[in-house]
Amino acid sequence: MSVLETNIPMGAGAEFDAIRRLLAVWGSQATGIGDDAAVVDIPPGERLVASTDACVENVHFRRGWLSAQEIGGRAAAAALSDLAAMGATPRGVLVAMALPIAWRPEIEALARGIGDVAASVGCPIIGGNITTATELSLTLSVLGSAARPVSRAGAQPGDIIFVTGRLGGPGAALDELRRGGTPAPGHRARFAAPLPRIHEGLWLAARGAHAAIDISDGLAADAAHLARASGVSLSIRAEALPCVNGVTMTDALRSGEEYELLVTMPAGFGSTTEFEQLFGIPLTAIGTVTAAADGDITYSGTAQITHGKGFDHLA
Amino acid sequence: MSVLETNIPMGAGAEFDAIRRLLAVWGSQATGIGDDAAVVDIPPGERLVASTDACVENVHFRRGWLSAQEIGGRAAAAALSDLAAMGATPRGVLVAMALPIAWRPEIEALARGIGDVAASVGCPIIGGNITTATELSLTLSVLGSAARPVSRAGAQPGDIIFVTGRLGGPGAALDELRRGGTPAPGHRARFAAPLPRIHEGLWLAARGAHAAIDISDGLAADAAHLARASGVSLSIRAEALPCVNGVTMTDALRSGEEYELLVTMPAGFGSTTEFEQLFGIPLTAIGTVTAAADGDITYSGTAQITHGKGFDHLA
Repeated sequence: MSVLETNIPMGAGAEFDAIRRLLAVWGSQATGIGDDAAVVDIPPGERLVASTDACVENVHFRRGWLSAQEIGGRAAAAALSDLAAMGATPRGVLVAMALPIAWRPEIEALARGIGDVAASVGCPIIGGNITTATELSLTLSVLGSAARPVSRAGAQPGDIIFVTGRLGGPGAALDELRRGGTPAPGHRARFAAPLPRIHEGLWLAARGAHAAIDISDGLAADAAHLARASGVSLSIRAEALPCVNGVTMTDALRSGEEYELLVTMPAGFGSTTEFEQLFGIPLTAIGTVTAAADGDITYSGTAQITHGKGFDHLA
Repeated sequence: MSVLETNIPMGAGAEFDAIRRLLAVWGSQATGIGDDAAVVDIPPGERLVASTDACVENVHFRRGWLSAQEIGGRAAAAALSDLAAMGATPRGVLVAMALPIAWRPEIEALARGIGDVAASVGCPIIGGNITTATELSLTLSVLGSAARPVSRAGAQPGDIIFVTGRLGGPGAALDELRRGGTPAPGHRARFAAPLPRIHEGLWLAARGAHAAIDISDGLAADAAHLARASGVSLSIRAEALPCVNGVTMTDALRSGEEYELLVTMPAGFGSTTEFEQLFGIPLTAIGTVTAAADGDITYSGTAQITHGKGFDHLA
């Protein structure tokens, strides 16, 4: 079952009751729910950009770490972040919930978290699926569009490497949570309430971004992915990395689930002032793309960095 | 992480190793895997049709009932069936796998099941997500396109109601499996290896289908969904229902996960001969759409039918 056009009346049963509770939270943000599938118009001249992302209890989070609303919000941010990295405009999200009985009272809070993050980037909720399960999992599929999607494989020698925002918050919060402690509020906020950099991604794409990737595995790992996909090498000035307070450069490099963007821009890109004024976060030049095709990352200003080692959910 | 253009080289780690094993099975059927998101072109003049569907161990199936390849195939058939019901051409599927450690040796078989069914309707695999979990779950998001998607809400008084194929096989197989028995081979095949009626749905849409729904909850329940969504009533001749051998009319009406299509066609639709010759399955007229707006289903030729009661995963 999934979801057309105006919301269509639905039948009886627990599945439909759960869907009604979701729709009550989402209101007019949910469009066209209730048919076999959702129908979306992609603007003429644009291409469809699509991705799916799962967030599973005890793999991606533990129940005590986050509120249900935060869990919903993080799932939406993680999924929409992939559209941000492609420079795509969100057109809709499909929400698949696997909901244990113990989580049923939290359905509105989960929905509110998803809804608020989707609303922050103008993304309607166009359908989904709900099932029971023994552990909570949220699998969000995001649909967007772009005239010229930005690949991670487009970096060119001579490009300047930029990163949005400040790194290290999620990693520091996770380290503290795993130790049983209480993260600093600033670190916790970066972990618990990330925002997808959709507007920032569109701004960078419009200014000719050659390549982009979101930092979900940590900057060191994602830089390696981008370099290998593009067939280039990267020279990164580690001392230039924008870190949140209280986090070392090395920890910032391996901090995953940042949902910031790593972008390579043509050398003539120019000033970051407009970006920083518009979005209220830094856009920092941290290095350059070089021609060697071996995907190597060279760091200056720091000791050893383990190349390509980041967050791995199956490790 | 999800998956652009040509397959892009990926980094190290168990997640990427698992993705490589999937890609080895899918070969050229998997296109553009390895970027933050997939890029798909929707033909000019067509609309995007999208749906997501989850298949969870111990909710939708038990491990002893089906091979891993069958589990993969059923997940693909269930998801693609929603596109069939919309009269849409598949453009791509995103495969989210939550894979317990005990299931890891089965990753190729799961992939083969998904790949074979997707290939049978010309649907490329354009991306996905893989994570560990304590129970197997496959969440497939399907993307299709149609110039005029067929809603379940479009039925008009005077339409003739048709159903594709023969009903009752999955219900009979499930009843037998739940009793600990061995289903008849014909019933088991309908349960274990359903095919999405994509080509059939396109053929019916091209001939002016007013409304369609796939029979995932059982004909009685899905007929009620269609009637309520369309604001009409249905008069069904239960004695006309095409049943598989050994299944009663009443059991066929409540048999879910059929993945056959229930379609309403304008009165002038004509002969079903070409359909049956092309696709090798019956297309059976089982009733008519009437004007009463209360969504009532009237059955002739049988005793009591519980209206709207079908398979409910949260019941």
